[in-house]
Amino acid sequence: MGQGRVLVVAATHGNERNAPWLMEHWRLQPQLLAAAGLELQLEIGNPKAFAANRRYIDRDLNRCFDPALLADPSRQELELQRARELLAAYGPEGRKPCAVALDLHSTTSAMGNSLVVYGRRPGDLALAAGIQARLGLPVYLHEADVAQTGFLVERWPSGLVIEVGPVPQGLVSPTICRQTQLAVEAACDTLAAAAAGRLRLPEGLQVHLHQASLDLPRRSDGTPLASLHPQRQGRDWQPLQSGDPLFWQPDRGGERYAPEVLGLNPEARWPVFINEAAYGEKGIALSLCRRERWPCERSWAEALEQLLQRSGPL
Amino acid sequence: MGQGRVLVVAATHGNERNAPWLMEHWRLQPQLLAAAGLELQLEIGNPKAFAANRRYIDRDLNRCFDPALLADPSRQELELQRARELLAAYGPEGRKPCAVALDLHSTTSAMGNSLVVYGRRPGDLALAAGIQARLGLPVYLHEADVAQTGFLVERWPSGLVIEVGPVPQGLVSPTICRQTQLAVEAACDTLAAAAAGRLRLPEGLQVHLHQASLDLPRRSDGTPLASLHPQRQGRDWQPLQSGDPLFWQPDRGGERYAPEVLGLNPEARWPVFINEAAYGEKGIALSLCRRERWPCERSWAEALEQLLQRSGPL
Repeated sequence: MGQGRVLVVAATHGNERNAPWLMEHWRLQPQLLAAAGLELQLEIGNPKAFAANRRYIDRDLNRCFDPALLADPSRQELELQRARELLAAYGPEGRKPCAVALDLHSTTSAMGNSLVVYGRRPGDLALAAGIQARLGLPVYLHEADVAQTGFLVERWPSGLVIEVGPVPQGLVSPTICRQTQLAVEAACDTLAAAAAGRLRLPEGLQVHLHQASLDLPRRSDGTPLASLHPQRQGRDWQPLQSGDPLFWQPDRGGERYAPEVLGLNPEARWPVFINEAAYGEKGIALSLCRRERWPCERSWAEALEQLLQRSGPL
Repeated sequence: MGQGRVLVVAATHGNERNAPWLMEHWRLQPQLLAAAGLELQLEIGNPKAFAANRRYIDRDLNRCFDPALLADPSRQELELQRARELLAAYGPEGRKPCAVALDLHSTTSAMGNSLVVYGRRPGDLALAAGIQARLGLPVYLHEADVAQTGFLVERWPSGLVIEVGPVPQGLVSPTICRQTQLAVEAACDTLAAAAAGRLRLPEGLQVHLHQASLDLPRRSDGTPLASLHPQRQGRDWQPLQSGDPLFWQPDRGGERYAPEVLGLNPEARWPVFINEAAYGEKGIALSLCRRERWPCERSWAEALEQLLQRSGPL
């Protein structure tokens, strides 16, 4: 069967332990993963951060895949070197080129089993729609965010992030592992259908379009003045109403969601990545999305099929 | 009022962010904490690990308070130096001696709002009984565990750990903060009563006595073969029955709790610190306790009263 290699990356962040735990099992016992006949390249994204049980050593690996950064010879942070290594091995011009990258993450936010797509590449939308048709997973479409760039999957012809939570950093949870595995298998099933030229998409794709990220209120020295409000914790994907409690201060109680004060489109009310522990340093307490339903286009499936068929057999 | 200083430590582990977040508020607005008239010394345990948002830099600070380690001049790890600093400042022989240490922790385990007591010092039992009478908090009595020693509060005449969870590392949760504050206020109320010579204890103290810790099954190279079973997640303080699922492997399903196979007393069935993320490196998937109810002794209250009255006013 004509099919390109598919790169599967776990532990792009070294303290997200569920996918690498699964991957170790898949390597030792390949029959544990229903890969739909695809050849998968299983890779630990950041082995040194994984060994240290830290998100990263020098720099977030999943913000290193910016073409200008990658091309700058003066930048030699550990993660930039690793990004170049991964591309040299599995990138489109690499030694074992892969057409698609699946990047497996976990989060402290209650994202459930979900997908993150970067921009609107037709092949990515086909893959997301195929997975959504199989499992119903919500899709966060990240775009137009100059503060967050350089994601791994953007350097492959197609790819997306499988994002599962809530789970603390550093912890393996079988529930999170099970959800991760189901999403990977749905992705493989979708990709195998595309490789065989028989990918059928559903009528529509529901997407949550990134609109803005909100930071906690902070003191002048940068320390947080408030925390997330307890009524927001764990309520990813549940739409905010104007007046809902948003942040909380011990001396003042709650601060309420007021899209007009924040200068937000009132439709930007679907929250994602609420209280993700790793985003504190990025100044993100939560992100807000607009929800839309797009009709699936035949051209999306064709784009994914071409990518997989063009890359051909080994 | 004759009363000794009370040391309150937050961020003994730098990625446990709730207590230090509260402490910053208490420092700026002391009226936010009902301290029952006590003079509190508020300290960040491990400022460098806190700045790095890591549990520790060189070595777990809360395993550094072993007299032999502290006395060994060849040991200069950052956390050992910090342990010596804290003792020089607030230890019994320090510049501002404190009679009692309250060490505020959070955990990824579902411990709820709970107390950890080290050994059976009468003053500690009085303090734990006073807090339990006020809030009903469960008590984990850690003793006879040669693998885990050198806890901070052991180097003060009296003290205990307030342990609240579940919360991921690196994250502030107002629910966790609220529980922490309630426990600190109950401790202050108990200590103020003891300092005034009017501490009344309840009839009994319920304790969970440490019996054993269980590690995950591992491969010969040390990597974990199994994870905790999903039916155990979040069930701290809920007694195990023989035959309950304990661990989980993708290829084999569940492994069951069998105290006789593990060589455990069948009464060692109360689990604590289930899937605490930081304990993976210590080889602890959960610990098991025996539950007992002890009659409170008048001598416990007297011991605590003497400690606080002897240390006198400033």
